[in-house]
Amino acid sequence: MRKVKIGLIGCGTVGGGVVKLLFKEGSNYQDRFGPEIELAKVCSRTKSKITALGVPEDRIVDDYRQIIDDPEIDIVVELVGGTGFAGDVVRDALKAGKNVVTANKALLAEYGEEIFHLADSGEGSVSFEAAVGGGIPIVDPLKRSLVGNRINYVMGILNGTTNYMLTRMANEGLDYASVLADAQRLGYAEADPTADVEGHDAAAKIALLSSMVFNSRVNVHDVYTNGISTISPVDFKRADHMGYVIKLLAIGRRTAEGIDVRVHPAMLPKSHPMASVNGVYNAVYVCGEPIGDVMFFGQGAGEGATASAVMGNIIDAARCIAEGSPVGFACTCIYKLPYMPIEDLESRYYIRLEVKDQHGTLHAISEVFDDCGISIRTMNQSILGENSCELTFVTHTARESNVQQALNKIAQLDCLESIGTLIRIEEN
Amino acid sequence: MRKVKIGLIGCGTVGGGVVKLLFKEGSNYQDRFGPEIELAKVCSRTKSKITALGVPEDRIVDDYRQIIDDPEIDIVVELVGGTGFAGDVVRDALKAGKNVVTANKALLAEYGEEIFHLADSGEGSVSFEAAVGGGIPIVDPLKRSLVGNRINYVMGILNGTTNYMLTRMANEGLDYASVLADAQRLGYAEADPTADVEGHDAAAKIALLSSMVFNSRVNVHDVYTNGISTISPVDFKRADHMGYVIKLLAIGRRTAEGIDVRVHPAMLPKSHPMASVNGVYNAVYVCGEPIGDVMFFGQGAGEGATASAVMGNIIDAARCIAEGSPVGFACTCIYKLPYMPIEDLESRYYIRLEVKDQHGTLHAISEVFDDCGISIRTMNQSILGENSCELTFVTHTARESNVQQALNKIAQLDCLESIGTLIRIEEN
Repeated sequence: MRKVKIGLIGCGTVGGGVVKLLFKEGSNYQDRFGPEIELAKVCSRTKSKITALGVPEDRIVDDYRQIIDDPEIDIVVELVGGTGFAGDVVRDALKAGKNVVTANKALLAEYGEEIFHLADSGEGSVSFEAAVGGGIPIVDPLKRSLVGNRINYVMGILNGTTNYMLTRMANEGLDYASVLADAQRLGYAEADPTADVEGHDAAAKIALLSSMVFNSRVNVHDVYTNGISTISPVDFKRADHMGYVIKLLAIGRRTAEGIDVRVHPAMLPKSHPMASVNGVYNAVYVCGEPIGDVMFFGQGAGEGATASAVMGNIIDAARCIAEGSPVGFACTCIYKLPYMPIEDLESRYYIRLEVKDQHGTLHAISEVFDDCGISIRTMNQSILGENSCELTFVTHTARESNVQQALNKIAQLDCLESIGTLIRIEEN
Repeated sequence: MRKVKIGLIGCGTVGGGVVKLLFKEGSNYQDRFGPEIELAKVCSRTKSKITALGVPEDRIVDDYRQIIDDPEIDIVVELVGGTGFAGDVVRDALKAGKNVVTANKALLAEYGEEIFHLADSGEGSVSFEAAVGGGIPIVDPLKRSLVGNRINYVMGILNGTTNYMLTRMANEGLDYASVLADAQRLGYAEADPTADVEGHDAAAKIALLSSMVFNSRVNVHDVYTNGISTISPVDFKRADHMGYVIKLLAIGRRTAEGIDVRVHPAMLPKSHPMASVNGVYNAVYVCGEPIGDVMFFGQGAGEGATASAVMGNIIDAARCIAEGSPVGFACTCIYKLPYMPIEDLESRYYIRLEVKDQHGTLHAISEVFDDCGISIRTMNQSILGENSCELTFVTHTARESNVQQALNKIAQLDCLESIGTLIRIEEN
C-alpha cells in the first residue's frame, strides 16, 4: 500500500499535538489501517517550536509554498487559524489539488462558499472535523450516520471559555469581571477575550453546523450574536429558582420562514441533557426525523482533543488516497434557504431592569409591556440600594420585535436606571 | 451517476421504518448526495406487512435467494435479527459479493470473526451502525473521527428496556417485578425479557464496541454478564444517599492483564455525564488518548432511531458504490489480546445481605470479610421483620475473587437468610 505524505502548516498548540501524536502512534496507525502516513514537511512561523518536537531539519521549510508545490504531498494540514494567511494557504492548496485538513472555523464560516467551491471544482477536498466541538465527532456523523434524517434543530454549547465562566458564575456566585480575570489567569480566556465572550467563536461554529444540517450555506455574518457580558450573579439565582441553567447557546432551527440561526445566553430547563454540560466541555444536540434527539459531548478545545479530530481526518483521507478513492464529500449546500430575521423569533424572555424606587415605576413599565402586546408570566422586585430596585420579568411567549420595542420605550422612561440583561428561554 | 439498488430482507418494525423513510426522503437524498437509491426487492416472512407499506407487488419476493442472486442488487439490508436465518442471509450475501447493512448485534457479536473474514476475503462489506446504540452514531465515529486515539475505556448504557426499568425503580421506588410487568404492558419489554434483563443484549453490544476500540475480536460469550433482577428499592435509596445512581453498565477496559469486558449493574457517581441518561435513552462514553472523554447520547432502539442508523449506512455505501470506491473498512481486529478474568477485577463493592437478628451476626460476617482481606468502608443495619435484618456494606477497593470467596463463606453462615445483591461501584 502506498505511503501518504502530509505537509503541516502551523505548529502551535494544535499543530504540535498533531506532530506528537503522529510520532507516538504512527506505526500503530499503519498496523491498524494500512497506509504509512509520513510527516514530509512542516512550516511554522516559529521554527524553534518545530525542532523542539523532534522534526528532522530537512523536513522543516520556511515557505508554505514549498509544501503546496511539492507534488508528493497528498494532504495539507492547515493549523494556522484566522482568515488572512490561513485563507491563502487553504486556497493555494486546493488550487494545487491537495486534500486539506483544517480546524479553521473562522475561515470556513466566512469564506466557506468560495472554499468548498474551489475544492469541488478541482481535485482537492476539505475536511474540518476539528473546526466544531474540538475533539467531539460531529461533522462526520452529520455527513454520514445522520445523513438519512431531516434535521430540524441543532443546538450547541460550542465555546469552552464562556461555558467555563458561566459554570463558575453559577456555582460560586462570582461576577462576570472576576471570573473573566480568573479565566485569563488560568489560560482559558485570551488577553483579548472578545471572540469568545461576545459569541463570535460560537457563531462561526453554528454557521458551519447549520450549513451542513440545512444544506444551505450560512455565513457567520448572518448569525445573530449576543455575548455573556451583561449576565450577573442575580440572574443565575433567578434561573436556578425557576428551574433553569444559563448557557451560551448556539442554535440553528428550521422554520417555515427560513433558517433561524443565533448565538445568545439562554435559560435551559435543568432536565435538558445539555443543562449538565459544564466547565470547558462542549456539546452538540441534534433533533431530526426520524432519529429524535441525539447529543454529542466532549472537550471542545485544547491540544489533545483537537489533535484527535485532526488526526481522524488525516487517517480517513490517507485511507482514501491509498485506495484511490475520492476524499470526503462535495459541498452539500444545494439549497439557498432564506434566514428568519431575529425580529420574528417567538420565545419566552427573562428581562432584568434596574429602576428608581419611586411611585408609579411598576405601573409605567407594566403599561409599556401591555402596549407592546407582551404578557408577563412572573415578576420579582427587590431592593438594590437606597433609592433603586431590581425588577425581573419572565414573559409568556412573545415576539422578539415587540420585546425590543418595549425595551426601547422602557429605556426612555424617567424611572429607568439601566436595562440589566435580556435572556431568552429555550424550551426546545 | 449510476443508480444503486438495494434488497431488503426482514420487514418488521425497523425494516418498515427503512421502507417508509426511503419512500418519503428518497428524492431528497438524491438531490443532496447524488446516487438514486432504489428499493429493488423486499423479502419478509409476512408479505402483508410489505404490501401495507406500499411496496409494488413486482418488488416483493418469497425467497431471500432471489435478492442475493440478483446481480443488479448492490446492497443487501438484513433486518431479520437473530443468529439463525439471518446468519445464512448475511453469509450468502457476502459470498455473493454484496455490501451488507445490518442491525444484528447478536449475529456479529457471536460470529463476527467468521463474518468479517468473509467480507474481507471477497468483494462484500458489512456496515452495522444500527447494531449498537440504535440511532446514536458510534460505530462510524469510532472507525473514523476517533481512530487516531488509543482508547482505554468504553462504557455504555446500551439497553433501553433495563434503563427504563431502573429509572422508574429509582424515581418511583417500585420493585423489579412490578416495573417489569409495566414495561411489558407498554411494549418496552418483551414477553420473554431474558435477553434484556439478564444483560445479554448489552453484552453483545459491548463485545462489538470492545472489538473495535481494542482492535481485538471480543466474542459475546467471553463477556462477563450479570442482570438486574436482584436489585431492590432499598438499593436505590442507599445509592442515592451515597451520591450514586444505579445503571446497567456495559464496560470494556484496557488493562495490563488484558481486556476487561463485562455487563452488570453498577453504582455510578451522580456527577458522571452518564448518570443522567434516563428512560429508554442509551449512551456511550469513551475515554482515550489524546482526546480525553467523549459521550454519545440518544435513543437506543425503536423504529425511527434504528432506521436512521440503517439509512446512514445505506447512503454511505451508495455513495461509495456510485463513485466506484470500496465500501467501509476491512476488519481492524489485528491483535489477539487476552481477556482479564473477572476474578482479577479490583473495584469497590456494595453488598446487601438479609440476616437473622441474633447475637453475633455482625461479628461473624465481619470476620469473613476480614479473613478474605476485604476492608469495609461503610455499613448500615436496619430491621426487616420480626427476626431479620438487612445489612448493607460498601467495601474499600477489593479483589473480585476475594469478594466471591467471602460471599461463598457468608452463604454457609447459620445467621444468613439470603444474599440480596452485589453491585460494583464504577468510579472511572
